[in-house]
Amino acid sequence: MPKRVCVIGVGFMGGSFALALRERYADCKVFGFDINPEAISKALYLKVIDEGSVHLEDLLPFEPELIVLATPVGAFKSIGKALASFDLPKSLITDMGSVKGHLVYMMEEYLGERFVGGHPIAGTEKSGVENSVRDLFKGKKCILTPTGRTSHQAKEKVKELWTDLGCFVEEMDPYLHDYVFGAVSHMPHAVAFALIDAIIKLSKDGVDLFEYPGGGFKDFTRIAMSDPIMWKDIFIENRENIIKAIDIFSESLKRLRDLIIDAKTKELTEYLREAKKQRERVK
Amino acid sequence: MPKRVCVIGVGFMGGSFALALRERYADCKVFGFDINPEAISKALYLKVIDEGSVHLEDLLPFEPELIVLATPVGAFKSIGKALASFDLPKSLITDMGSVKGHLVYMMEEYLGERFVGGHPIAGTEKSGVENSVRDLFKGKKCILTPTGRTSHQAKEKVKELWTDLGCFVEEMDPYLHDYVFGAVSHMPHAVAFALIDAIIKLSKDGVDLFEYPGGGFKDFTRIAMSDPIMWKDIFIENRENIIKAIDIFSESLKRLRDLIIDAKTKELTEYLREAKKQRERVK
Repeated sequence: MPKRVCVIGVGFMGGSFALALRERYADCKVFGFDINPEAISKALYLKVIDEGSVHLEDLLPFEPELIVLATPVGAFKSIGKALASFDLPKSLITDMGSVKGHLVYMMEEYLGERFVGGHPIAGTEKSGVENSVRDLFKGKKCILTPTGRTSHQAKEKVKELWTDLGCFVEEMDPYLHDYVFGAVSHMPHAVAFALIDAIIKLSKDGVDLFEYPGGGFKDFTRIAMSDPIMWKDIFIENRENIIKAIDIFSESLKRLRDLIIDAKTKELTEYLREAKKQRERVK
Repeated sequence: MPKRVCVIGVGFMGGSFALALRERYADCKVFGFDINPEAISKALYLKVIDEGSVHLEDLLPFEPELIVLATPVGAFKSIGKALASFDLPKSLITDMGSVKGHLVYMMEEYLGERFVGGHPIAGTEKSGVENSVRDLFKGKKCILTPTGRTSHQAKEKVKELWTDLGCFVEEMDPYLHDYVFGAVSHMPHAVAFALIDAIIKLSKDGVDLFEYPGGGFKDFTRIAMSDPIMWKDIFIENRENIIKAIDIFSESLKRLRDLIIDAKTKELTEYLREAKKQRERVK
């Protein structure tokens, strides 16, 4: 049961984590760091955090037992380096990033066995600390990606934390994690952003297609409202898996396109039926 | 205010229409036709329709003022032909199909000026009369696609009907309709079905990716649970527009893929930011 937690990156994810922590552990204090002063002042005003600063070194006098990275993954390198330069012998360090793989090994280089990679499978298209919700993690999966180097004790503490916040914790190899979420989350986000880009281009004949958002369009494209900086980082850090998944998807779409253009009713129906059947397995 | 309405195709759309009609017009009677006897017996049991049959000619003694096609669009040709062979001098005829264009002109060939093409922009991934909901159309757009041949009186009556059911009625050229909905509805459905096909293929290394449906995956792929027969027909009947939209989408995705692979952070952020901005215009 941690009593002093530092959240690095006070946005939607970090803010929701802080709220969840303080709801679960009545006497837990949260220190928030963010490069954006507005995020810190909002978070203090909304009582999402107890203390906060735009200077990372200000976390030192707070003496956190646990430090949680909740920034876009592109910031992990500089944060890892900075934390490594600090004297923080008692702090466990974990993260909530959507990419693990090489980032986990990089963080271990800086921080050693006390770093435990984590990824709660929770989130919405929303961003900003003002949208934080305290029950974001309840009933969700949280993937931990320990390596051969990870301290057993550190891992168990992080596992207990997420279990306490209502997550089902599952362990996974860091690189397998990136393959899996490259396919089921990152590639679909790329598809959603590209879909909006296509609708912009298709709008060019004096017809504003965004005026006709029926037929599932809203649900389908909601994730294209996700934070551009967070997603730019995910796309770049997990690009090998994402490109592979985009290429498989493009083949699937090409096959469907061929069935449509050739009006192959039987194979087309079969293609749609199989997709429906598989999607229905997801509860 | 129609008192005797025949709904052809008693599925989710036809059933929801029948429920909405009977709620709005207390003394309106609905006759349902479907080729599937189970749909008729369910619809009678659930009191969605007053009378029903699996023989189209049984609608003759019912003497409907209004006939509404709510079948997959692939059935319109045979139904149009059959209705043309009946003696139905007083019946207005309209439809709820997702494709208009050439189908509207074909129906006019069979049925003349009393046919009014219509498309309520409402629906879910659900199918089957047992899932019908009476308020499906409230607050939604309904597109009517009259042509130079359409009877003014017929159009006004159909317009009044949809307005009474809570829709905002808008008129559009039949071919423009197919361009617009090919882009904002049909192409995105193709993309969702192809996305599931890709996830099936990416699952093949002993990892069942359908066990990790986080990060918007459920919302994004919900429409891939839509009825395969209905969508096979839409894809084939509107294939020219859909293929054009798929090709534009594929170019958009290729551009995004290139920005990711080359790690062009500035252009990538701009691409995502613009997509987010445009999507946010959709309320």
